Amino acid sequence: MNAIGMVSGKLWTGFLGPRIGLCNNALRAMSCHTNTQIVEEVAKLLELKAQLGTDDGKQMFALKTPKGTRDYNPKQMAIRESVFNTIISCFKRHGAETIDTPVFELKETLTGKYGEDSKLIYDLKDQGGELLSLRYDLTVPFARYLAMNKISNIKRYHIAKVYRRDNPAMTKGRYREFYQCDFDIAGQYDPMIPDAECIKVVHEILAELQLGDFRIKVNDRRILDGMFAVCGVPDDKFRAICSTVDKLDKASWEEVKNEMVGEKGLAPEAADRIGEYVRMHGGFDLAEKLLQDPQLSQNKHALEGLTDMKDLFKYLELFKITDKVIFDLSLARGLDYYTGVIYEAVLIRPQNVHPSEELVSVGSVAGGGRYDGLVGMFDHKGRKVPCVGVSVGIERVFSILEQKAEASEEKIRTTETQVLVASAQKNLLEERLKLTSELWDAGIKAEVLYKKNPKLLSQLQHCEETGIPLVAIIGEQELKEGVVKLRNVATREEVDVSRVTLVEEIKKRSIQS
Amino acid sequence: MNAIGMVSGKLWTGFLGPRIGLCNNALRAMSCHTNTQIVEEVAKLLELKAQLGTDDGKQMFALKTPKGTRDYNPKQMAIRESVFNTIISCFKRHGAETIDTPVFELKETLTGKYGEDSKLIYDLKDQGGELLSLRYDLTVPFARYLAMNKISNIKRYHIAKVYRRDNPAMTKGRYREFYQCDFDIAGQYDPMIPDAECIKVVHEILAELQLGDFRIKVNDRRILDGMFAVCGVPDDKFRAICSTVDKLDKASWEEVKNEMVGEKGLAPEAADRIGEYVRMHGGFDLAEKLLQDPQLSQNKHALEGLTDMKDLFKYLELFKITDKVIFDLSLARGLDYYTGVIYEAVLIRPQNVHPSEELVSVGSVAGGGRYDGLVGMFDHKGRKVPCVGVSVGIERVFSILEQKAEASEEKIRTTETQVLVASAQKNLLEERLKLTSELWDAGIKAEVLYKKNPKLLSQLQHCEETGIPLVAIIGEQELKEGVVKLRNVATREEVDVSRVTLVEEIKKRSIQS
Repeated sequence: MNAIGMVSGKLWTGFLGPRIGLCNNALRAMSCHTNTQIVEEVAKLLELKAQLGTDDGKQMFALKTPKGTRDYNPKQMAIRESVFNTIISCFKRHGAETIDTPVFELKETLTGKYGEDSKLIYDLKDQGGELLSLRYDLTVPFARYLAMNKISNIKRYHIAKVYRRDNPAMTKGRYREFYQCDFDIAGQYDPMIPDAECIKVVHEILAELQLGDFRIKVNDRRILDGMFAVCGVPDDKFRAICSTVDKLDKASWEEVKNEMVGEKGLAPEAADRIGEYVRMHGGFDLAEKLLQDPQLSQNKHALEGLTDMKDLFKYLELFKITDKVIFDLSLARGLDYYTGVIYEAVLIRPQNVHPSEELVSVGSVAGGGRYDGLVGMFDHKGRKVPCVGVSVGIERVFSILEQKAEASEEKIRTTETQVLVASAQKNLLEERLKLTSELWDAGIKAEVLYKKNPKLLSQLQHCEETGIPLVAIIGEQELKEGVVKLRNVATREEVDVSRVTLVEEIKKRSIQS
Repeated sequence: MNAIGMVSGKLWTGFLGPRIGLCNNALRAMSCHTNTQIVEEVAKLLELKAQLGTDDGKQMFALKTPKGTRDYNPKQMAIRESVFNTIISCFKRHGAETIDTPVFELKETLTGKYGEDSKLIYDLKDQGGELLSLRYDLTVPFARYLAMNKISNIKRYHIAKVYRRDNPAMTKGRYREFYQCDFDIAGQYDPMIPDAECIKVVHEILAELQLGDFRIKVNDRRILDGMFAVCGVPDDKFRAICSTVDKLDKASWEEVKNEMVGEKGLAPEAADRIGEYVRMHGGFDLAEKLLQDPQLSQNKHALEGLTDMKDLFKYLELFKITDKVIFDLSLARGLDYYTGVIYEAVLIRPQNVHPSEELVSVGSVAGGGRYDGLVGMFDHKGRKVPCVGVSVGIERVFSILEQKAEASEEKIRTTETQVLVASAQKNLLEERLKLTSELWDAGIKAEVLYKKNPKLLSQLQHCEETGIPLVAIIGEQELKEGVVKLRNVATREEVDVSRVTLVEEIKKRSIQS
């Protein structure tokens, strides 16, 4: 009897619980390096076994969603809908149109756009025909869309799911399938005006969602490039070092420095000089101060970036949002395609806010920046369309709001039904159906139980459980008199209403409730 | 110089046009069987060439969406949104909640659910970890969701994209990525009541979308099975013959018969007997008539199906929709999982409607049926949850409405912007930004051009092009006086409005327009 045989009777690979249990108990005697390794090996074997079917001939398989994904139940959908409404309202307030693109793109469309992150792209199996990949973000499809349709200016939003074969951390809202809510402005405009609007959009959304305090960090790829140059980073290492700097929000400076020197082969002195810069943060004043930096100010890229940064803060001042925006030289953002300003919004744990500047973030909820070269990569004449945009990652927002909803006593309704058509008497199914149909045709949201002779109590219970506020009760007497007994579920008040005015009466009462 | 070399200078594989031209002209001299074959071969070579890059070393690739997919531009999105609103309103009117599931499922979740159509499933590449497939419909994920969460009754809708590696016919609205709008009722109820509601839902949606006349064909798998039995189809051929009968909406009886006899090995006499039944259509009366059929009425399955069919028509009569519903014995529907009533809605070309029964359909826009066994396939104890549902396929609906919109003169607005903040004078960017920001914060949908000194004319043109009804114009004088010149774009009327009441004035005018 082997380890697998021991548990096959209870085999159900859909739950993590049994796997862990298996590792701790049944396999304790096995020689192994770590529990994790065993768990992984066993999981693989169980998967294989599930594919082969169980001993009794009945096919068994994991009853689960793929790793890193989840279903949304009706309550979660109600929260999701309200978050989307807030975000879409904001995008529309700023005059954006919307587009949609396919969930997959030609594989080559995504190639060379994401730097080190490219390994996280989901590919489709080659089943003959084109090679396809699931979209990794909404920005590259947007750029492809602009180039393909020769569009040189547009302000659009796009809300859709994207896919990354990342290590999921679902309690923190990190999934392999997740929504992005993107707002982008494409076109040749005067510097930093659309860029400032994107930051304003993030500010409005985060303020309106009431998730607690937040900060929006900004930086500029040109400032980073200038900084790397004056610190002595060789040109061909800029992007690699940039990716490493990007890890500063999760890792310590020591770890980041080790990666720069060890993995990326940077001189320790260069790393140390970078270390000095990336500790800096401020606002308009910091940009001015760095413009006085004897080395940085000599670098063309840094000079441009810093001058624009001053303009950006001037516009943010007009928008009255500089209290939440930090010019932070450690902000790098990993994606290859950024060319100018970059930004990232983080939520701050309210309990940890104290006068010192050491704010503990619970993670990024929005990010973006300027990418002036991306559309040109798709245009066969290399025509450039300057773009700037922001992407709101709402899974983390959902997590927070779901936890809030669970903690509160408030009941979330998942339907909008205004009235249940019911009866206390038998053999009135046809009359109930007829009345319900009349209500539907009049635009009333109505339900009826799918039983020939349901008990009145179970009909009332259905209303209580699902929050239906009204019951329209019919019986022989009511039918004879041409009336309906309209009952208020909460107050238990009942009133006879003429069938002719029923729709009107329901509408009147629905506005009140 | 070969055929490919001849055109490589203009190589751009994204458009179909050049490919066709290539076949007709450059390749005419080549020996070949059909033009189609050449086109296919050339397309393959062009794809290969695109992947390898062009001669000048610059990587070239097809600037296109994957085969059978499309982008939605802002105008198409506006149409899509209005169609969704109609459909969602209907689903909510019938008391449905909503859920969402991942775009991919474990491959094994989809295995054995779709019969012959399984070959059309998109698989993901094995990149380590679980084997995944894109969802083929929303029904199987729904059943998986019910089993996984041990839900025994729910009425839910789900609107999402599904994926099929089918032969696309995009002008007819047949895509490889397309939306389904599903409404399903799960639970143990009295016969045919939820089934009738599903048909009512289809009727409401198609009537409201105003796509022209339509019919909803209904049949029952049990009647089909009974029919096959009494016609002498061996038990193990039921599903295969059912798939073939399903083709009757696109193929002639002769073709279908040939497939039954030739490919599926059915005796010609059995096929002929099926041929007699599948010509029948009617309503309540046909069900009654068939209940008198000496053979069919002896079959247990057919008896159940026909008895239920009578009930169904009784309920549809109460819903007042029998004029659009046809009991049609040729309706089969290919999917394996149906167990009871099945239905399919088809649009009818208005110009072809004449008193005879020969209605020309422009294709199916909705379909569904009862699937009482599907959830049990996912439950490890085999617990059954009876389900019935309908899926509205809206791509065809979009195609029709897009053609309508193009034909009409009416301009579709793609943004909701209420006001553009503008200026006729120079150096007022900051004042424009400040005012725009004030409007955003007050919930007004406002835009401002991203130029330091735009011309008033170009600001007004932007309003005309995008349908913005109001312009808030500021100049030195207005700023001094604390007013804004509010201009109605359509009437060109201008009125000075105090800055204090501006928001109110804009709101007032937005309701009017």
